[in-house]
Amino acid sequence: MEVRAEPRAVSGFRLAGVAAGLKNDPNRKDLGLIVADAPAAAAGIFTTNQVKAAPVILAQQRLRSGRLRAVAANSGSANCFTGKAGMKLALDSCAAVAAEAGCAPELVAPSSTGVIGHLYDLEKYRAGVREAYSALAAGGLGEFATAIMTTDTTPKVASTVIRIGGRPVTIAGTAKGAGMIAPNMATMLAFILTDAALPVVALRRALAKAAPLSFNAITVDGDMSTNDTLMLLASGAAFNGKPSGREIGIFEEAVGAVAHSLARQLVYDGEGATKFVNVEVRGARTSSDAARIARQIANSPLVKTAFFGRDPNVGRITAAAGACGVRFDPDRIELWVDKIRIAARGMILTGALPAAGQAMRQREFSVRLDLKQGSARFSMMTCDLSYDYVKINAEYTT
Amino acid sequence: MEVRAEPRAVSGFRLAGVAAGLKNDPNRKDLGLIVADAPAAAAGIFTTNQVKAAPVILAQQRLRSGRLRAVAANSGSANCFTGKAGMKLALDSCAAVAAEAGCAPELVAPSSTGVIGHLYDLEKYRAGVREAYSALAAGGLGEFATAIMTTDTTPKVASTVIRIGGRPVTIAGTAKGAGMIAPNMATMLAFILTDAALPVVALRRALAKAAPLSFNAITVDGDMSTNDTLMLLASGAAFNGKPSGREIGIFEEAVGAVAHSLARQLVYDGEGATKFVNVEVRGARTSSDAARIARQIANSPLVKTAFFGRDPNVGRITAAAGACGVRFDPDRIELWVDKIRIAARGMILTGALPAAGQAMRQREFSVRLDLKQGSARFSMMTCDLSYDYVKINAEYTT
Repeated sequence: MEVRAEPRAVSGFRLAGVAAGLKNDPNRKDLGLIVADAPAAAAGIFTTNQVKAAPVILAQQRLRSGRLRAVAANSGSANCFTGKAGMKLALDSCAAVAAEAGCAPELVAPSSTGVIGHLYDLEKYRAGVREAYSALAAGGLGEFATAIMTTDTTPKVASTVIRIGGRPVTIAGTAKGAGMIAPNMATMLAFILTDAALPVVALRRALAKAAPLSFNAITVDGDMSTNDTLMLLASGAAFNGKPSGREIGIFEEAVGAVAHSLARQLVYDGEGATKFVNVEVRGARTSSDAARIARQIANSPLVKTAFFGRDPNVGRITAAAGACGVRFDPDRIELWVDKIRIAARGMILTGALPAAGQAMRQREFSVRLDLKQGSARFSMMTCDLSYDYVKINAEYTT
Repeated sequence: MEVRAEPRAVSGFRLAGVAAGLKNDPNRKDLGLIVADAPAAAAGIFTTNQVKAAPVILAQQRLRSGRLRAVAANSGSANCFTGKAGMKLALDSCAAVAAEAGCAPELVAPSSTGVIGHLYDLEKYRAGVREAYSALAAGGLGEFATAIMTTDTTPKVASTVIRIGGRPVTIAGTAKGAGMIAPNMATMLAFILTDAALPVVALRRALAKAAPLSFNAITVDGDMSTNDTLMLLASGAAFNGKPSGREIGIFEEAVGAVAHSLARQLVYDGEGATKFVNVEVRGARTSSDAARIARQIANSPLVKTAFFGRDPNVGRITAAAGACGVRFDPDRIELWVDKIRIAARGMILTGALPAAGQAMRQREFSVRLDLKQGSARFSMMTCDLSYDYVKINAEYTT
């Protein structure tokens, strides 16, 4: 199935994004609304951080019913580490949206991202909600995507169309996040919408299958956020009838593909990133072994600075691989940059290094480690560690 | 007991450090010898990395006997990921030292640090051994310390004197390492010498107690090396007689204090470091909980860039604390920079932030997180993440 990095209207939903003045720069959009024509089936996955933002706690509670009418997302403030005042702010924010939509506040889920420990201005927020509500449009995904950006340099959207019961079903989503990106989940908000008519249990299963291979398979800096949120909402407006098991499979694959595209866009736009690197570990005994090694390599500052320096540094990659506790025989492994083998039989293939260094001049390349002990594999998407990552995170409170 | 960051002669040992031409710069020292007048009791702790350098594998084997006559350490090449040729090189290197010392090669332990995947020149090494052997001196610890440096900017030494059985006993050591520094152990070589007369089992116990609170309590970049080595050699030349239980305790404390001083010097000289930060977690249920949280904070790139930016970033520190799986109540924790409390009752104490930012202008400061749920604690020593860390690791193959 073809997933495009572009927005698409999803019947049953209208969206908007406006500048409510929650960010320091009053011209930047910072408040996004997703409103369903009628209560939509909804599922979510949230940060496992012990320090959870108020909107995360509230959204998690509200998603237990499996139904949402609206999502109210803001940037400029994560509303995290804000005590009781933060929870009151999240409740009041949802109430403002519910008043516009004419629904119970329990059907509105909040979502916030930005500086931790900072309360946004409720009056500005309320005015923003009124403005956003009147701007809601079927084609508003791009505006919404812009409103949830923080240090992101570009909005991220992805969409695809499949068929269920002979009818076209659209899946479209957006995500934000450029730093504090790590397994599991990231400083990341992601919202995927579909017009499929599906029970909430099918949505929960689709998310549970999609997350490990998309948002949980990326890293920018190994830091886990307090606000990670991934939601999937289904309006049912496609009137597709009861799907077959095969069609459920296609739906899950489509959600996974949209999630993967969004996750990939997050890493591409990682803070200060100049390289996108797919780190694949194969030939492992189990996929969890492969994942542990891939994560260790993808998170290593020494490996990531070598990526920035276009240095095919076998030592750093194999040292990272060896550090995570998974057993393997260093004399059997093979290491590749794109199609160029740079290590085998416990030795660096020094003749291959110049070509590998050349391949690393590209914006995107792959590093593949074959453990030669089984058939399991796992891929992590990561970026390099550049001067600009330090600059972005040392010079500003983000 | 007073530990000084200065070398001291240890009876029964002679040391030297010379420039053998193993580094790119022929004027830099790169080969160090420790030679005991007679076989010394010896213990060691080594990297747990799956990818172990040949000298690590060989030294580990040879230390099983609990006796060593000499340690041959070189910088310029880690002799890791070098296949069978690497093991042959390590064996031949030890043989060269054994020939000079007139002892069995099994009594010589090798130790290498530097670029991975690179074999050093055996002929240059042999010539260097001859030169170093003739330069051996009781006061040679400083020369040895210089010979094992890689990206270190200063040699690291520490020493103290205690009394056992009424006789003075000296403990003196050196360490190297500035990057690839992480729990557990680091790209780190450390050698501690004593003239105490103690059985090898006492040395092993002293090392096992010292490592968790010194070399395993530091981080520069969270990367674990292939060559980590910590050795403790005892010549017995102090002729102290059989120590009491209390004296063994004092000895262990002294080894711990020397190890701690060396570990602290490593972090001070961390690659690109402009700040030394003591991250203390207290009020935890168990010290292992405290250690997990302290490590997560001390390793977080977002926290470390905030240190570089002198930003008392409560959000990043608490988010890191919450990410490691240890349960705590965010509304009860308190966070301090030096003596300044910056968070309590689930809120940032914004009025205190300017003073905290001021405290962070110092070369060294502390961050203390009190979980308020018990009495266990753990401290990690870490540094900031600066432009120069990226520069050092992106522009050169290290």
